[in-house]
This record gives sequence, structure tokens and C-alpha cells, in this order.
Amino acid sequence: MLGSAMASLPARLLARARLDVDERRARLLALGLQLFGKREFASISIDDIALEAGISRSLLYHYFRNKRGFYVETIRFAAEQLHQRIQPDLALPPRERLEQGLHAYLDYVADYADAYTTLVRGGGAGDDDEVRTIVERTREAIIADMLATIGPQAETPLVRVALRGWLGMVEFSAIEWLARRREVDRSELVGVLLAACEAVLTATLGERARVD
Amino acid sequence: MLGSAMASLPARLLARARLDVDERRARLLALGLQLFGKREFASISIDDIALEAGISRSLLYHYFRNKRGFYVETIRFAAEQLHQRIQPDLALPPRERLEQGLHAYLDYVADYADAYTTLVRGGGAGDDDEVRTIVERTREAIIADMLATIGPQAETPLVRVALRGWLGMVEFSAIEWLARRREVDRSELVGVLLAACEAVLTATLGERARVD
Repeated sequence: MLGSAMASLPARLLARARLDVDERRARLLALGLQLFGKREFASISIDDIALEAGISRSLLYHYFRNKRGFYVETIRFAAEQLHQRIQPDLALPPRERLEQGLHAYLDYVADYADAYTTLVRGGGAGDDDEVRTIVERTREAIIADMLATIGPQAETPLVRVALRGWLGMVEFSAIEWLARRREVDRSELVGVLLAACEAVLTATLGERARVD
Repeated sequence: MLGSAMASLPARLLARARLDVDERRARLLALGLQLFGKREFASISIDDIALEAGISRSLLYHYFRNKRGFYVETIRFAAEQLHQRIQPDLALPPRERLEQGLHAYLDYVADYADAYTTLVRGGGAGDDDEVRTIVERTREAIIADMLATIGPQAETPLVRVALRGWLGMVEFSAIEWLARRREVDRSELVGVLLAACEAVLTATLGERARVD
């Protein structure tokens, strides 16, 4: 028993060290999202980032290849965070699943306003293929989740066009809502997005598509 | 009579020259939209543009301050073109006005796919404030047209958030439709967007908001 515990000690130390590395990396990425959400990419230097993080330039380069690499990883981090947050509870019926997902989505938008804005709008260097691919994959993953919920009859080109459109509605209204959160309740916006989703599915699939 | 005709000749010649300048400028902008729609901003040089246009570099600099200035003007040009195209026929009832506007919008998207993609996605340098302002003003102008059609009861924060969202739906679905035009009829997409608009207005304003 003791022998086997001893043998696993290095592995546990390694795992602990790995956790520290992951945690520091995650903290750097969270900081990056704040920075890139507030200022243009071009106006932020590696020195600014290291200063804000309270670490050395060289340690920053240990985690990320350069400023561009750091930026791309912050986008990837935000996208993964968002997608995790809105994972549906599969025990719920479809309509409640969607409603819960929308509340979780808008919670993320409110809690990480800078991160979300950076994610969907880009932070000043957002137009390259690497960043577009991350953002597009996240959108496609959300649509795949929705199609899986609606069922195989939803696999038509028109439904796909409509769901992409609906996701555009979610993103645009979320950005506008961020500026008007004192005037518009989150539940009101969820109600509008649910109504639009139902209308879109009824228009494309008819009664088969009801999500309640 | 003859005297007054003679006196206006220089003015007419000037007007004619002005027209030529405007027309050449418009042709250059149309070319710019094609170029920026197909390739990243950074990969296109002033020499590429001059070569494609069949004019000298120096003539190009006569019209535009630099490559960046040329890019910004192509965005402005596309935005103005789109907004002009979708101007509603005020003689129509609201619902038909919206339907006609959506057909005109998607016609523009289909006829000027590159221009439209450049406009709503940016062409690789799209994230600066100048370009954002042009795109945002166009969106706001479209929403102002819609609010004017719906009437003063529509001037609430929730309706504004919802209409911004709906415009996001129009943009996202139009981009997706471009890739699926053989499978999805323009009228089908117009039907989906109309249904979503009605659902959104009913959810925000109730029966007051019916646009038929």
C-alpha cells in the first residue's frame, strides 16, 4: 500500500504542477479578455499585458507564442467558456432546455461583457482566419445542439439558414442589451428570443417543429 | 437666349466632367468591393488595385488618400447602395413594405455578394472605428425606417433591442443563404424573416404592433 502511494507521488506532484500551470494560464486568459474587450488589439503591448498580470515578459512568452497567439487563445477560451455555460440539461423538455440555455447565455454575456464583446466583435485584429474559425465553430456547435434537440426532421437547408439567422439575433440583441440592461430585463429578452425561435421553426417546419 | 445658353456652357462642361469623375470613382469603388470581398485586406496592394482598374497608381491616389482610405470608401459605398435599394414604397401597407424591403435586401445580397460580405464581415481591416461607424449608421438607419413604419408606440428600449436582434437575423441568414442559394428560395427566406419580425413585435408590443 505504502509502496504504491510512494510510487504515485511524483505523478501527483506533476498533476499538481500541471493544475497550477493551467490555473495561471486561465487567469492570464481572463485578464486578456478584459484587456482586449476594453482596448484595440494594436494599442496593447506585451509589456502592458505582463504589467497587468504582474509577471515577467518572459513568463508570458512561456505560455503564449506572442501577442497574437495570446489574443487567439483568449478568443478560444471565451468561446469554450460560453459553450460550456449553455450546455443544456437533457432531462428538461425541449422548450425549457432552450429557455434555460438562453438564460445561461445572457448570464455569461452580463458576467463577462468584455469577453463576449471581444468574442463576437473581435478586438481589433479579429478578422483573420484563425479567429473566424474559432467563432464559427462555436456557432456551429450551438446550432448542432439545437438541431439535436429538434430532431432529424430539422436537417434541411432552410432550417439551417433560419437557425444561423436566429443565432445572429441572439448575438445582436445581446450586444444591444448590454448597453440597456437597466431598461430591459433579461427575462423580457429571453421571451423575445423564444418567440422568434418558435416563429422561425414553425415557418420552416410547420407544426412538427414545436419545441414545447 | 443664345447669350444665356453660352454663359451656361462652362457650367455644363464642369457638370459633365464632374459626372465622369463620379462615375470613375463609382467604378473604382465597385472594383474595390469585388477585391476586398475575395481577398484579405492585407494581401491586396495599391498596385493590385491599379492593375485591376487599368489605371495608374497616381490616378488612384488622386481619388483616394491610400489603400486604407480606398477600403473605407468602398464600405461607405456598399452601405449607401444597400440602404438606397431597400427604401420602402410608402404607398404600400406596412407588412408589404417590409416584405418588399426584404426582397430588395436579398436581391442586393445576391447581386453584390462580395460587397455585402465585405460590408457585414469586414475585409481584414474591418475592425477599426471608422468602418464600424459606417456599418452601425446603416443598421441604425434601417431600424429608424422600421420604427417610423411601426409608429411611436415602438419607441421602447425592448423594441430597440429586439429590432437590433432581428437585423442580426437578417444579416446572418443572408450570409448563410449566399452559400445555399440553390437549395433555399429567396421567398422562403423572406417568409422566415417576416414571421420572425411579427413574432418579435408581438412579443414586445402585443397586438398593437401587428404590421399587417
